Formats: sequence, structure tokens, C-alpha cells
Amino acid sequence: MSLVLYNLLAVHAIIDPICEPSILEDLRGEIESDLSMRLDALTGPKSLQDAIKYSVLNGGKRLRPALTLLSCQAAGGDKCDALAAGSALELIHSFSLVHDDLPAMDDDKLRRGQPTLHIKTGEAMAILAGDAMMSLAFQWITDPQQDVSIGNQLTQELADATTRMIVGQVYDTLGGFAADSTPAQKLKLTHQNKTAALIRAACRMGGICADSSDEQLKALTTYGEAIGLMFQIVDDLIDVTQSTEHVGKATGKDQQAGKLTYPGVFGPDESKAQVLHLRNEAKKAVIPLGDLAHPLIELCDYMAVRTK
Amino acid sequence: MSLVLYNLLAVHAIIDPICEPSILEDLRGEIESDLSMRLDALTGPKSLQDAIKYSVLNGGKRLRPALTLLSCQAAGGDKCDALAAGSALELIHSFSLVHDDLPAMDDDKLRRGQPTLHIKTGEAMAILAGDAMMSLAFQWITDPQQDVSIGNQLTQELADATTRMIVGQVYDTLGGFAADSTPAQKLKLTHQNKTAALIRAACRMGGICADSSDEQLKALTTYGEAIGLMFQIVDDLIDVTQSTEHVGKATGKDQQAGKLTYPGVFGPDESKAQVLHLRNEAKKAVIPLGDLAHPLIELCDYMAVRTK
Repeated sequence: MSLVLYNLLAVHAIIDPICEPSILEDLRGEIESDLSMRLDALTGPKSLQDAIKYSVLNGGKRLRPALTLLSCQAAGGDKCDALAAGSALELIHSFSLVHDDLPAMDDDKLRRGQPTLHIKTGEAMAILAGDAMMSLAFQWITDPQQDVSIGNQLTQELADATTRMIVGQVYDTLGGFAADSTPAQKLKLTHQNKTAALIRAACRMGGICADSSDEQLKALTTYGEAIGLMFQIVDDLIDVTQSTEHVGKATGKDQQAGKLTYPGVFGPDESKAQVLHLRNEAKKAVIPLGDLAHPLIELCDYMAVRTK
Repeated sequence: MSLVLYNLLAVHAIIDPICEPSILEDLRGEIESDLSMRLDALTGPKSLQDAIKYSVLNGGKRLRPALTLLSCQAAGGDKCDALAAGSALELIHSFSLVHDDLPAMDDDKLRRGQPTLHIKTGEAMAILAGDAMMSLAFQWITDPQQDVSIGNQLTQELADATTRMIVGQVYDTLGGFAADSTPAQKLKLTHQNKTAALIRAACRMGGICADSSDEQLKALTTYGEAIGLMFQIVDDLIDVTQSTEHVGKATGKDQQAGKLTYPGVFGPDESKAQVLHLRNEAKKAVIPLGDLAHPLIELCDYMAVRTK
């Protein structure tokens, strides 16, 4: 192990790893059952259905839908009312992974320990399945049984966050920053769009499903923005400190590809400090929501120290 | 010219070509100005904005948004209220062309007489720009100023039609039909999804923007389904009868690729007869809408005899 890698590992280990909170495990069951039910109901070519199921039902952590369900509860709602929005968010997340893995993009062959979709089915199906996953997500959040105002707000949130995620992917893969941007500015712009926007939307969509007050939605927004950025910094740290076997996808690739990362730009100590700062910001934001927000605090603590 | 090609040309020419109706030319100006305004307002990397503008503002016929505006008028609405929906439909149509042209899909190098987007920008940008075009379309139809019920219905229509369009593309590119399907069944299933679904949605979305009655929406739906299928049959006829120079994209490719086409499965005479039948069905459907539907009838007549 190189000295740099060793140091990064040590720094990332300053906070003792904690186990995944049981709340996440419990929610995962509900979310995967909702996803399975929806994907089993798909019509059209079985090959397309199989490709989508392969990409979605493959052992993901389900962090985004869990955040949606818990944010709905934290705003006083019933988490079942947020299941469709949570599943839609997971579908958008999965679509982004399928397209990002394509040969013309990151050219990844492994995802969650399994062959990526284009390796399994060929590129044409991976492109089309990714496209279908995006449009299906918008079908799922506009259930005719649901309040139309909520459906409209959910569409605005999801569409805006999806565009921002793609904008972030353009910055990350192809650049295109303003000429006078510093590396720190480029990094923040990339991460806030590529990863944080969808996590922020996950929290806000939970609040919207609970028909939350402006104050509740503001608290969830601040929480979501903080953990969204924190999530990506932790991801960058994991990329340089963990093995491919542990994470289930190729690690060390960002550095090799010369991509901007938090440990690369700020150094590991400063990256770690930012994780702690954002964790505190997130936890502070949801205090006004009272006891109902406790699971969000627990999930935030876990997200700060996860190792994969 | 081969004898087969000559015969097809002759058959397609049974109906005398008419000029593009002036109503389409007038609407095109309004639609393109709305599209330009929306695309100029995009934030994020200029390279992404340029890629989207290159794909969208390139001399398209704007048939889908024109149908949306005219359907809105035919249901008694103001066509300006349908501009956002029309532009969103054009964006979905353009996204589908960008992804269909990719090397892993149809591998087309020419579109409307210009290099396809991936030839111009590389594949990564073409994949991402296509993705962004889809999510932007959903942003455009859920304007916060608009009635939330209309926004919700537009999202349902657009998401459902987009999924069906992708399903049709899977059938067309990769197959996956039920084992006992006849060529005619396969062809109808492909075309109804790949092309007709979005044209049907274009008409229905116009009606929704006008807050149409159930009867009006039903008339527009029947019209849209008929011209949607008719459009693709005419496209198939154009592919075997017109030159690449005339059409501005490679022709004769469907036949070379062994794809199912109407002239291939039913023969040119029967294909032509189906065009006439569907034209009549469409025109009959909108009679109850009265004089306001006259432009839809004019557009239908043009769509039946267009040669590119």
C-alpha cells in the first residue's frame, strides 16, 4: 500500500465505522417490495423489463428512497404516501448509473459486484433501458389517485434534480467550466449538481408527499443539501481508501482519470473536516422537526462514516 | 433505378403531392421562437446547451408541437397556452433522434442534412444531451404559473408516451415480440409505440391545455391515433421511394437492416390504402369539433402526402 493511500485510510477511519442503522434495513424491504411490484407490472418486451429489473433490483443501498420516506415521516406524513416518489428517485438514480457506465462514458464493467448492464445485454439495450427508466419515474409520481398539486410539485422537483444531475455529469466527464474557475469551485459545482441535487430532491419530495409547511420543507432542504454534498465527499474518500472487492465497483478510477475529487483538491484532512461540518449542519437543520426527525439524524450519522 | 423502387415511387405518387400548408409554416415560427427562448435560458455548461440547441434548432418540421397548438385551438383554447407542451414534445422527439442515431443503435451519421450529434460532439455528449432533453421536457410542462391539474395530466401523458416510444424502439431495434406474433402484428405493435404514441400525446396534450371536455379529448385522441400510425406508414414509404439528398437522412436503411416496414410486410398498394383509410378516420374523428378543427384536417391531408 502506498504511503498516500495509507494516510487517507487512517484519516477516513478517525470516526469509527458504525453499523448500518436498522431503520435503513427495515425501509429497504418496503422499498424493494414496492420497486418489484412496479417493475413486475411493466408491459412491453420482456427483454426491456429484465434489463430494468437487473439494473434496479441488484442490492442497492436505497439511500435516496429511504430519505424520501423518512423525510415524509419527519414532516408528519405517512411513509407509505412517499413510496411512489421514493421508487421513482431510485429509478432515476439507477438510470444515471446505467448511462454513466457506458463505454463512451466511464466505461465501467462492474457495478455492485455484478457486470454492468451493457456488458450483460449490449449497449443498445443499456441506452434504451436507461431512457425508459427516466420516463417511467415520471409516470410513477403522477398517479391519478394522488392529489394533483402534489403530483405537479413532485414532477418539478424530480425533473429539476435530474437535469442538474446530468449537468453535473457533463462537468465531471467533459468539463466546460467558466475559464476563471478555481479547482475548488469546479469541484463544488460538479458535486452539487451530480450527486447533491438528487439527494436534496429526495428529502424535499418526502416533505411534499406529507404536504409539509414551508418551515418543514426548508428544514428538509437544508438537511438534504448538506448530506448530499457530504455523501459525495465520503464517496471520494471511499474511492481512494477502499478496495474494489469491498466496494463492489472499480475504485481508484477517479484519481487515475484525473477527475477532480475532494481528497485530491483539498487533501484528506480538509475533506474529513468538511464531512464533519456538513454532518453537523444537516443534524442542526432538522432539530425544529422534533422527535420525528430522529431517524434522519441516525441516517446522517451513518452516511458520514459508511465505507461503501 | 430498380423496378421495385420505381413501382414504389409510382404508388406513393398516386396522391398528388401538395405543398406544405401555410398554417404549418406560420406555427413553426412561433414554436421555434419559444424553443429558442427556452434553450437560450438554460444554465450549466455551454457545451451542453450548444449540443441541445444543435439537435433541436436544426430545421425540423415541428409537426408534433404544431399538432399540440392546433389541437388546443380545436378544443376552444388559446394556442399560446399550449406552447410549453408543444416545445416539450419537440424536445422528447429530438432526444429520441439523438439516441437512435448513436453507433450502438442505428449508427446514423446524417440527420436533416447535417452531421448527427455524436459525430459533431462525440458520443458521451450525445448520450448526456439526450438525457437532459428528456428531463428538461418535464420541467417545461410543469410551469408553477400553470393550473396544477393541467400540469399533472400533461406529465402523465408525456411520460406514458415517452415510455411507449422507447418500448417501440426496443421492438424495432432488438425485437422481443411474443413468439406467436405475425409480421403484421409485430409491425403494428412497433409503429403504434415507436411513432404513434407521441403523436397521439401531442394531440391529447393540446386538448388538455385547453381544459377540453371528455368528448373533445376523445375526438382528438382518435384523430391522433390515426395520424400517428399514418405518419409512420408514410415514413416507411418515403424510406423506400426517396433519395438521401431529398430527405436529408440516409434512406433505404430499414430495408437493408431487415427491419419490418409497411411496404415490406403489406406491399406498397396495401400500405397506400392504409394511409388513405387512416386519413379518412382522422378527418372523420374531428368533425364534431366544427370549424375550429379545420387546420387539423388540412394538416392531416398534408401528412398523408408529404415526401420528406
